[in-house]
Amino acid sequence: MSGDTINIALVGCGTVGGGVAHVLLAHADRVTQRAGRPLALRRVVVRDHAKLRDPIIPRDIISTDIADAIHDPNVHIVVELVGGLGIAKKVVLDALAAGKHVVTANKSLLADAGAEVFEAARRAERTVCFEAAVAGGVPVIRALGESLAANQVTAIQAILNGTSNFILTAMAERGMSYAAALAEAQRLGYAEADPTLDVDGSDAAHKLAILAQISFGVAARPHEIARQGIDTIDAMDIRFAYELGYTIKLLAEAWTGGHSHSTNGAKLSRGGAANAAHANGGPPTVALHVAPVLLRHTDLLAQVRGAYNAVLVYGDIVGETLYQGPGAGQMPTASSVVADLIDLGVGRAQRTFAAAKLWSHEGRGFTVEPPERVRSRFYLRLQVADRPGVLADITRILADEEISISSLVQHETEEGEPGASATGAVPLVIVTHYASTGKFRKALERINALSTTAAPAVFFSMGD
Amino acid sequence: MSGDTINIALVGCGTVGGGVAHVLLAHADRVTQRAGRPLALRRVVVRDHAKLRDPIIPRDIISTDIADAIHDPNVHIVVELVGGLGIAKKVVLDALAAGKHVVTANKSLLADAGAEVFEAARRAERTVCFEAAVAGGVPVIRALGESLAANQVTAIQAILNGTSNFILTAMAERGMSYAAALAEAQRLGYAEADPTLDVDGSDAAHKLAILAQISFGVAARPHEIARQGIDTIDAMDIRFAYELGYTIKLLAEAWTGGHSHSTNGAKLSRGGAANAAHANGGPPTVALHVAPVLLRHTDLLAQVRGAYNAVLVYGDIVGETLYQGPGAGQMPTASSVVADLIDLGVGRAQRTFAAAKLWSHEGRGFTVEPPERVRSRFYLRLQVADRPGVLADITRILADEEISISSLVQHETEEGEPGASATGAVPLVIVTHYASTGKFRKALERINALSTTAAPAVFFSMGD
Repeated sequence: MSGDTINIALVGCGTVGGGVAHVLLAHADRVTQRAGRPLALRRVVVRDHAKLRDPIIPRDIISTDIADAIHDPNVHIVVELVGGLGIAKKVVLDALAAGKHVVTANKSLLADAGAEVFEAARRAERTVCFEAAVAGGVPVIRALGESLAANQVTAIQAILNGTSNFILTAMAERGMSYAAALAEAQRLGYAEADPTLDVDGSDAAHKLAILAQISFGVAARPHEIARQGIDTIDAMDIRFAYELGYTIKLLAEAWTGGHSHSTNGAKLSRGGAANAAHANGGPPTVALHVAPVLLRHTDLLAQVRGAYNAVLVYGDIVGETLYQGPGAGQMPTASSVVADLIDLGVGRAQRTFAAAKLWSHEGRGFTVEPPERVRSRFYLRLQVADRPGVLADITRILADEEISISSLVQHETEEGEPGASATGAVPLVIVTHYASTGKFRKALERINALSTTAAPAVFFSMGD
Repeated sequence: MSGDTINIALVGCGTVGGGVAHVLLAHADRVTQRAGRPLALRRVVVRDHAKLRDPIIPRDIISTDIADAIHDPNVHIVVELVGGLGIAKKVVLDALAAGKHVVTANKSLLADAGAEVFEAARRAERTVCFEAAVAGGVPVIRALGESLAANQVTAIQAILNGTSNFILTAMAERGMSYAAALAEAQRLGYAEADPTLDVDGSDAAHKLAILAQISFGVAARPHEIARQGIDTIDAMDIRFAYELGYTIKLLAEAWTGGHSHSTNGAKLSRGGAANAAHANGGPPTVALHVAPVLLRHTDLLAQVRGAYNAVLVYGDIVGETLYQGPGAGQMPTASSVVADLIDLGVGRAQRTFAAAKLWSHEGRGFTVEPPERVRSRFYLRLQVADRPGVLADITRILADEEISISSLVQHETEEGEPGASATGAVPLVIVTHYASTGKFRKALERINALSTTAAPAVFFSMGD
C-alpha cells in the first residue's frame, strides 16, 4: 500500500515539537513505510524565529504566523504543541474549521474543553488524536480505546505525574526530606522552577479527567476532581507507612462500585464503596480522585520508581493490565505524537475517532460520585500532646462518625528525637477501616479543633 | 456511526471459545456500541456436540461441520480457536480462501506458518488478527504494531510463559523445590499434566518468533531460536542468585547490536554484543533466545510475580515501555479476541494489516544473529570436588576461551548441609564478564569433562 503525501504543520516547536520534527525528518523513510505514505513536515510555526536553531529543520518552512499553517490548503494535519488554553484552543478550533485533522499533546485543553473540541471535530468531519496528552510515551489512550474495547473498565489506578513519583521515590529510598527531594528534582530538570501543578495533583487531575472520559464517558472537569498533593507528606509519614507495610504514591484513581479485584498481589477492593446510588437502582457511579495513597509494598504500582508513569487498568473481562514507561520528556512524547500521525496516515485514527464518540452525549451511563460520599480507608497522622485522655478524645470523635480503627502506631519518644516537637507533642498514626470521606472530614475538623492537637492532622488514602 | 451486522463463526469452543461466546452474547450491546455495528455470533463449530453445555449459546447455531461455518456466505469472520497446526491451519487457509477475515489465538500456527497464512490473506484481500496469540490479555501486538510505530524496536525482554513464572516465583518467595513448585502449579491449573512445552521454553519461543517478526521483520522459526528451560534450576541457584543481587526469570529476549539502555533501574546493556556483522558494514542483526536470566532485584521484570506475563520493549525514540497482565486464561484471552473482532467491525484492523506487511518479503533489514556468536554474561554453577587445584583447572579453561570472571562464590560447607553431596562435591558459582556463547559452550564442555566435576555444569544468562 502506498498513497499520497500527507503534509503536516507543527504549531509550537519547543522541546516536544523539536522531537517531532526530528523524527519526521531524520526517520522519514521509516515513517513513510509505517504510514504507507510519506508524512512531510511542511510548516513549522514558532513565536520567535531566532530561537529555533535545530539545523535539521529547513529554514524555508519556518514561520511565525499561525494562519500560514492553518490556511495552507496543502496542509492536512495540524500538530498543536503550544500548550495551555488560550492560543492552543484557537489553533485547534481554527484548524478543524479549516478542514485539518489535529494531533495534540495538550491535556489542559482536552480536560477543560474536550466537549467543544470534539464536537467541532465531528462537525468538520475531522479527527483529533491525543495519545501524548496522557502519560507521555505510554500508549494508554490506545489501550483504553482499542485494546480493551471488549471491557467495561471498572477501575484505574495510575501514576501520572513523574515529578511527584521521583520525589516520593527519593524520600522512600534515600530518606530525603520533601524539600530536599524537590530541590533534587528541580536540579535534574524533572520539576519546574514553580512545581505547584505537579506536586499539588493538578497535572494528574487533568490526565485523569481524560482517562475517565474514555473509560466511563463522564465529563469531569479537573477542578471537580478531589485532589490532594504530596506537599504535606513528611519523611515521618514515609517511615510510618513503611512500618505498616506500605509505600506512598501519588495516584490518580477512578473506581466504580462494581469493582473488586485481588490478583497478583495488587488489590483494589473498594467494591460497593463508590456506588450506593447504583445499588438503590440509580445510575452507576465512578469515584475520582488524585491523592497520596498507601500501597502494599508488593502492589505493582508500589514498585514504579523515579520519574516513570504507570497505569493499572481493571477491565471486567481481562482483569488487570499495566502500562508503564516514560511519562514526559522530548522523545517519549514525540514517539506518541508521531504514532498518531502514522495512524492518520494509515487511516486507523479516523475510524477510531468516529467509533469512540468521546465527549459526546452518548455516555456510558456513569455519573461521578460526589467526593464526600466516596468511601475509603484512611491513614491519619496527628501531632498530639503526650498526656492522659488524648487518645480517648480522638477515638471518641472517630466513633461518633462511625469510623472504626484498623491499626494504631505510637512510639515512645525522647526529647530531641525526630518526631518529638519542642512542645512535647508526639506523632500518633491511625489507620481506619472504610469510612465515607464526608464523615472522615467531619471527624478531622473536630480532631483539629482539640486543644491537645498540636498541628493540623495529615491524612492519606489507603490503597486497600 | 452504525453499520451492517457482522456475522461471526467460532471454530473451536473450548475454554477460550466459551469465553468469546460469552462476551459476544452477554455483552452484545457493549460490543455493538464499540464496533459501531452488531457483531453476531452466527455459528459455533465443535467436535462433540454433547460437550458444549453453556446454556447461553443457542443450540441452533452449534454444528460439528467446519465447512458449514467456512462456506456460509453470511459469515464474515472466522475465529480459529482449535489450536495447533493440522486442522487449525486448514481452517484458517480455507476461511481466507472463502473470503472471510480470520481472528486467531494460535501462536504455533503463526510462528510456524506465518508467511503462508499472511500471504494467503493478502491474496484473498482479507485480514488476519492475532492479539491473543502472544501474552493473552496483554495487548502487546497493538503496542508493537501501532503505539510504537514511530520507533525501531531495539530490544524486547519478556515473560511470556505464566507457568514458568509461577514456578520461579514459588521457588524464590517460598523456598520451594522445582518439583514441588511444578506440582503446585499443576494442582492450581497453571500447568498441564505434561508441562514440557511450558517449562522447556518452547511456548515462549513461539511467542518470541511472532514478536520478532513484528519488530524486526525476521522470520525465525521457533526451533531456530536458542532455547533453555527452567527445569535445570535448583533451589540452590535461586539462593545463589539472590545472594549476588539477582532474581531468576525465564525470559524471551530479542536485542540488536545498537541496543543500549539503562533507565529506571532496568538495564539491558548488551550494546555491540549481537552485532559484530553490522559494525563491519553487514546487515544489522538481532539476537533471539529463551532462557533463564538473572535480573537485578530492582529490574521491572524481576518484580513480575506469579502467572503474569510482561513485555518490556525498548524503542529508539520512546525508550522503554512495559506491558503487563494475565498471559492466559479464559476471559483474558477472550478479551483480546473480542478486541480484534471489534477492530474488524470498526475497520481499523484491515488498515493495520495492509500497512504492516507482516511475514512479507518487505523486511526491516535485520537478520538473526547465529546463536554461537551472541555475547552475554553467564552464571555458571558447578559441583566440584573440594580439593586443591580444582579452581585452577576451571579458571585456566575459562582463560583459554578468553572468558574473564566477574565474581565467584564458594561457601564453606559441612557434611550433611544442603549443597554438600555425598561424594564431597561442593557448589561453586562463577559469574563471567561478556563472552561469546560459542566460546562459553566450548569452555563448558571442557569443564564438564574434568574428573573433578561431579555433575554437568548449570548455567544461565545474566540480564546485565
